[in-house]
Amino acid sequence: MDDDEPFCAVHEAIQLLQEKWMLHIVRALLTSGPLGFNELARAAGGCNPATLAQRLDRLEDLHLATRTVEQVMPPRTSYRLTESGMALQDVIDSIDRWGQRYICERLAAPARRAATA
Amino acid sequence: MDDDEPFCAVHEAIQLLQEKWMLHIVRALLTSGPLGFNELARAAGGCNPATLAQRLDRLEDLHLATRTVEQVMPPRTSYRLTESGMALQDVIDSIDRWGQRYICERLAAPARRAATA
Repeated sequence: MDDDEPFCAVHEAIQLLQEKWMLHIVRALLTSGPLGFNELARAAGGCNPATLAQRLDRLEDLHLATRTVEQVMPPRTSYRLTESGMALQDVIDSIDRWGQRYICERLAAPARRAATA
Repeated sequence: MDDDEPFCAVHEAIQLLQEKWMLHIVRALLTSGPLGFNELARAAGGCNPATLAQRLDRLEDLHLATRTVEQVMPPRTSYRLTESGMALQDVIDSIDRWGQRYICERLAAPARRAATA
């Protein structure tokens, strides 16, 4: 590693995970995978096909997800996380814990106040 | 909560954190805050001013960051995370752990192979 450029793992990981829809896609695969392309688009919350295809390519390039084509008629393609991709469960869990504690009340409170006004 | 719409904390938290530069900004404030606007732009890795201003507005709206204006000449504005914002340390730490373990080797390996070829 000595003659490599300094490499910041957290910076590179953030670069990946901040790509729009990426965390939603990962979460959908963690929760409900393996999933077909259209199922995954829906489970991720309505990701458009072009973006979903790009994100899946990126996940495959980094060996975080794999695509399987079943030889049935019509052929069925499904996507699942690899072990490295499934390790993102910790990231999703930490976001979930933070969201439960700090985001629920912030975003839900105005709606609740309006409902009881 | 019974008569509220179902509210998915993790979905809303992901919506926030996937905004481009958001995780970089949060990480910079966690690591080096409080910071002035230009310092923060640099510490986040070169975020452009318009995007940084939008992201800081969003963090302020959600009470995740605060802005302080010091009455000196010229006035100095600085940004820091609130307690709720600082709780994102757990999210950044989990991304860091995952990145160290799974992203380093994936992204660094091609460069290292090229360097030794």
